[in-house]
Amino acid sequence: MSGTAQIGVTGLAVMGRNLARNFARNGYTVALHNRTNARTRELVESFGDEGSFVPTESAEEFVAALERPRRLMIMVKAGAPTDAVIEEFAPLLEPGDQIIDGGNAHFEDTRRRERELRERGIHFVGVGVSGGEEGALHGPSIMPGGSPESYDTLGPMLERIAAKAPDGTPCTTHIGPDGAGHFVKMVHNGIEYADMQLIAEAYHLLRSVAGYSPEKIAETFREWNTGRLDSYLIEITAEVLAHTDPVTGKPFVDVVADRAEQKGTGRWTVQIALDLGVPVSGIAEAVFARSLSGHIDLREASQSLPGPTPQPLDEADAARFAAQVEQALYASKIVSYTQGFHQIRAGGDTYDWNIDLGSVAAIWRAGCIIRAAFLDRIRTAFDARADLPSLLSDKQFAEEIGAAQDDWRAVVATAARQGVPTPGFSAALAYYDALRARRLPAALTQAQRDFFGAHTYRRTDREGSFHTLWGGDRSEVGTG
Amino acid sequence: MSGTAQIGVTGLAVMGRNLARNFARNGYTVALHNRTNARTRELVESFGDEGSFVPTESAEEFVAALERPRRLMIMVKAGAPTDAVIEEFAPLLEPGDQIIDGGNAHFEDTRRRERELRERGIHFVGVGVSGGEEGALHGPSIMPGGSPESYDTLGPMLERIAAKAPDGTPCTTHIGPDGAGHFVKMVHNGIEYADMQLIAEAYHLLRSVAGYSPEKIAETFREWNTGRLDSYLIEITAEVLAHTDPVTGKPFVDVVADRAEQKGTGRWTVQIALDLGVPVSGIAEAVFARSLSGHIDLREASQSLPGPTPQPLDEADAARFAAQVEQALYASKIVSYTQGFHQIRAGGDTYDWNIDLGSVAAIWRAGCIIRAAFLDRIRTAFDARADLPSLLSDKQFAEEIGAAQDDWRAVVATAARQGVPTPGFSAALAYYDALRARRLPAALTQAQRDFFGAHTYRRTDREGSFHTLWGGDRSEVGTG
Repeated sequence: MSGTAQIGVTGLAVMGRNLARNFARNGYTVALHNRTNARTRELVESFGDEGSFVPTESAEEFVAALERPRRLMIMVKAGAPTDAVIEEFAPLLEPGDQIIDGGNAHFEDTRRRERELRERGIHFVGVGVSGGEEGALHGPSIMPGGSPESYDTLGPMLERIAAKAPDGTPCTTHIGPDGAGHFVKMVHNGIEYADMQLIAEAYHLLRSVAGYSPEKIAETFREWNTGRLDSYLIEITAEVLAHTDPVTGKPFVDVVADRAEQKGTGRWTVQIALDLGVPVSGIAEAVFARSLSGHIDLREASQSLPGPTPQPLDEADAARFAAQVEQALYASKIVSYTQGFHQIRAGGDTYDWNIDLGSVAAIWRAGCIIRAAFLDRIRTAFDARADLPSLLSDKQFAEEIGAAQDDWRAVVATAARQGVPTPGFSAALAYYDALRARRLPAALTQAQRDFFGAHTYRRTDREGSFHTLWGGDRSEVGTG
Repeated sequence: MSGTAQIGVTGLAVMGRNLARNFARNGYTVALHNRTNARTRELVESFGDEGSFVPTESAEEFVAALERPRRLMIMVKAGAPTDAVIEEFAPLLEPGDQIIDGGNAHFEDTRRRERELRERGIHFVGVGVSGGEEGALHGPSIMPGGSPESYDTLGPMLERIAAKAPDGTPCTTHIGPDGAGHFVKMVHNGIEYADMQLIAEAYHLLRSVAGYSPEKIAETFREWNTGRLDSYLIEITAEVLAHTDPVTGKPFVDVVADRAEQKGTGRWTVQIALDLGVPVSGIAEAVFARSLSGHIDLREASQSLPGPTPQPLDEADAARFAAQVEQALYASKIVSYTQGFHQIRAGGDTYDWNIDLGSVAAIWRAGCIIRAAFLDRIRTAFDARADLPSLLSDKQFAEEIGAAQDDWRAVVATAARQGVPTPGFSAALAYYDALRARRLPAALTQAQRDFFGAHTYRRTDREGSFHTLWGGDRSEVGTG
């Protein structure tokens, strides 16, 4: 017996509930299931009039409610809970059915699950969903992996519930097989960390060096949001900075404890980038900045360390400095995205995912946390040339960063002299200068490795590997 | 039947061979074993007169040659080969025997192996060995983990073959249980990466900004090596830079390809630091700098990116700048070691290893790649106060970094303005300034997280967690 629901959602916490409602509001019949039935009933009581829901109270009833081939979406915690739910439902399914994991799984778990379920004839579709609660309800950016066949029937449904870019295109596409979707979602989050860190540094500089109030900085961000930095994160920065704490009447940002937490996807991004050999220094500095902020003991013990105190600038100088900070923020942002897209390309190559970078930029244009006008131009750059070695090789971005670099350098230099930490801005500038260097001091590093560990080196003028007999007569021997 | 050899070494590639010779030269009878017997015979033929060797040709013969309880050292490749050798020998051993792994194992593998072999009554001792081939032969720095009982009998032997610090103390100590030794060796290597990167940046600045020749820079490093930077890596930097390529007659460093390779321990250090929540930005930048140097396509595509070309300084200015670079190098080095020791403390706390940080510094004073006069002062700092929150909390280091900071800031600012990449110097300075900051912009980051993900925040003036109803009337609710 086959049911009528085109999709079922199990796990009805806020993300699962809002995705279920989003499907129903778009005309789909949605089967509902939750470990505790109260939550299922609550959803139907509160939102039942939004569309067609089929509440169910057992795994068997849930599976029976689905049309065949079945599409069963699990929205539970990543890790062991996800495995447990898969093991609960997989035996009830038939070949050709789909299990869709919309949680924040590690892509290596997704690869494993896809492989295991494929052997049982079941499509396992790991789907990255970005946009938070609001996005889940009104239109997230959706990054599905899994088999192309699964996308044939699931894709059109995701396209219906996804956010729409300004040009009307749905913010979802088939990213690639198995773990490709969760991988790209992971890097999305890594870029989000870097974006937030760069914004935090810009704020810190405007506050400490320019001497601006939070209200004045909110104004500055609002203005930036009308230009090339136009993005959700810049917009909410202005909102947060303009907010007054209702309890004390002080600027809200001044009453919030300065400890930034994290849930793990930024850390994963850096760990995987290290495995792939991709330098993602901007994301790494963002993750480290969060962990540093939480080391209260260390910070307290370090407050007597000497350093300069910035002298406030006069109004005209402050305005000039603010304009330089905008340049530095934009240039550093280009570097962050360069690093992130490099990681996606490297992941795609390593795992044979054949990811289209232009499409990734396209589906981040709306619905997700890093949505920004800027992404449309990244899409254009990769659409124009899919084999673009890096975003910095795109003529327009190269020109923009070239035009920004004097101010960027001035800001990094000022931050160093004035004692304001700008790990993100500095790492981005160092990456830029290292990439464009004709000779890097890596030659010295490799020569040292040959000296103490006989690790050999290559030469600039001949093919092959060589070793110098450092402990002997210092002649050179070929090693292959 | 019990043999007479106090130790056996299986795996007689260069590291195993040299350790076996070191044991024999120190009066121990050493059983030898290798998968191919030719290597065993070679060792005895070439070095048999150095001491007492017992060559063997099978696993059974090897085990039989050892006195009881047996000490069997494996010197094979990390990973699967190590597991294979353990599985070959463990069945031939008896409770109380020791298997000693002197390879570069990941400490998590060591933890697993120790746990598995403990159940079989066998001590598994993971031992970090640093110093390369020469160190293995003449005295390495040795970092043994494993049970305290295993150290009772193995320790005195390791103390005999280890390097001796200038004050005569052997460079080995019981680091802690199970994987503690390999963990500390891993962080040692991470610090080594950071040290080498900082040296590379100093070289790059002296070359590009001061306009010095490699020979002149070699002289500068030789001079630095007589002061507080006195260390093996500074010494060999001078050696490498003074070397002339016998083929072309050019400075050697100019004919070496500028691509630095890596074998993985630096990467592991950063990956584990991310898991532990310890900011090790200096090590991360060093790992990234190596991988960046190898991305030839990306580098070639980036060479037309605009940037300044440093103008050579006159002699007096160059000398002044070189002195500033020494300050920047020294200050950044203090930060690297601060981060590295933070990671060791965090690892010790997480895995209950009870690591004595002063002893770690003490056994790195000789034999290993990062040996340096400086480490004696780190030892003193931790010996004086085992609960020192960080190296930067030590009065003397704080004073030194305080005295260096003006020059350090000037160097980072100059590098930014002149277009010389100094990711290590910059990351170290940003870490220093972040740690000493009274307020970090992490407050803004956390407020943003609350805005888009309802992740809540803490307040500076009250206990508890709070959430602002950003999508509603923006009032604040307590959440626990």
